[in-house]
Amino acid sequence: MEHVQYAYVNQQLVPQDQAFLHVSDLAIQRGYGVFEFCKLHQQVPLFLEEYLDRFYQSAALLELVVPLEREALKVAIQTLAKRNRLEVSGMKMILTGGYSINGYAPATPNLILLQQPLTLPGEEQVKKGIRVMSHAYMRELPLAKTINYMTGIRLLKEMRKRGAEDVLYHQQGVVTELPRCNFFIVRQDNTVVTPSENILRGITRKNVLQLAARKYPVVEGAVTLEDIAQAKEAFLTSTTKRILPIVQLDDMVIGEGRPGPITLELSEDLIRLEEAQLALHKQLD
Amino acid sequence: MEHVQYAYVNQQLVPQDQAFLHVSDLAIQRGYGVFEFCKLHQQVPLFLEEYLDRFYQSAALLELVVPLEREALKVAIQTLAKRNRLEVSGMKMILTGGYSINGYAPATPNLILLQQPLTLPGEEQVKKGIRVMSHAYMRELPLAKTINYMTGIRLLKEMRKRGAEDVLYHQQGVVTELPRCNFFIVRQDNTVVTPSENILRGITRKNVLQLAARKYPVVEGAVTLEDIAQAKEAFLTSTTKRILPIVQLDDMVIGEGRPGPITLELSEDLIRLEEAQLALHKQLD
Repeated sequence: MEHVQYAYVNQQLVPQDQAFLHVSDLAIQRGYGVFEFCKLHQQVPLFLEEYLDRFYQSAALLELVVPLEREALKVAIQTLAKRNRLEVSGMKMILTGGYSINGYAPATPNLILLQQPLTLPGEEQVKKGIRVMSHAYMRELPLAKTINYMTGIRLLKEMRKRGAEDVLYHQQGVVTELPRCNFFIVRQDNTVVTPSENILRGITRKNVLQLAARKYPVVEGAVTLEDIAQAKEAFLTSTTKRILPIVQLDDMVIGEGRPGPITLELSEDLIRLEEAQLALHKQLD
Repeated sequence: MEHVQYAYVNQQLVPQDQAFLHVSDLAIQRGYGVFEFCKLHQQVPLFLEEYLDRFYQSAALLELVVPLEREALKVAIQTLAKRNRLEVSGMKMILTGGYSINGYAPATPNLILLQQPLTLPGEEQVKKGIRVMSHAYMRELPLAKTINYMTGIRLLKEMRKRGAEDVLYHQQGVVTELPRCNFFIVRQDNTVVTPSENILRGITRKNVLQLAARKYPVVEGAVTLEDIAQAKEAFLTSTTKRILPIVQLDDMVIGEGRPGPITLELSEDLIRLEEAQLALHKQLD
């Protein structure tokens, strides 16, 4: 018998295929909501505190109140993880504008927890790197992890047509982020640089900055398309992708056109950091 | 016994309180969807063809396929209207990105029809006019009626604090639209002007342009904040609000600070046009 996956909808544990929202919800009516996505290994959510910090911040930016206090939300996440018993998974927390009476004004928010199995990028993909296309765009309210991904989703087709695997957003040549990832370059002098303004402040981005700072100069500041042309290496960071080398932007080969040594080194460091977090958690448990 | 209101969810007529979408829907996951909203008097949808044109256009801009052909959608609207028997109502058609497997790529769209009673602005509100605040913003993909209203909803609180009843968007002083309405001014020489770029092309806007053109010069073109300062009159148009005079923008009184004669005249003309449409429809029925 297949193991049934569960979800949380407003503090009720329900089989995932029965997790519904009424159509008056402001996410459906007006695209109004925020979310968070963290990674679990053997039911242990990694760097959970950071994800929760950002979840409550995003909610506050949209003036939505998370219906659970932080400790109660952690218990809900743990309960769901225990029930679903997944080896490696992603936990999505969605907070919507709620069942609006007039279809416009926010109401009591709905909170949903969804868990799904997660396949992390294999060694092969990391060694190959990816190509990305550039696109002039800035997310609305970039500091909040809102559910608005219209531009990213609309670009999926063009992306594939152009043989790109992701999109790098910029405004007048100043780079910000990818739809679901942060962006880094390594300069010729080995300085690791990542944009700091008009971006979502990624948890993996923060971890990678700390790892990089142990060995290299790091800078949080403006990165232009021209900086990428001059860079030795480039890579993205995200919860589900960890670190992926970027070897080409549009028609421009980055560095030597293959994953660079610093990117690969940081990628290994990040995996070790995750393993250490997991080990620490298991000791404390 | 209260009369139960019905809704359509994917071609199934269901009691409105049982109209649900699964949380994997791309509207909930990624704010990805479009909608339309038309007005019905005594079960007759006014200017339906225009609304349907725009609905299919919005869907195409998001590369979503409406699961019903135009004639079948009209039948669905009529069936629902007959069932709900509302005197004056709004019919919302929502088309979402569907139940996405990976929470990002669009799937088979979900189509929802929702009907609700509608209260049109009374004579008193029209004679009083409204105050609006300005805000620098342009909707993403303005030609499509997408569900993304994050900025408008986030401004609700500030709006109330400042005593404004709506928001006028502009970019570098070039005016576009209100979150849910189009914008017009009347120049000192009685020319009726409305922005034509980076806006949603409203059905009421189109009707008002035609009505105005019978009596006054009309221009579809750039309107700046400075043009508003110089204008005699200003008003908004929308399906639910018809024409509402705008008498103040931020701290600036427009014209003489009360609804102008051309605005009020067009308001009456619009009501007569709607009555004529209704009468025509009833004769043909």
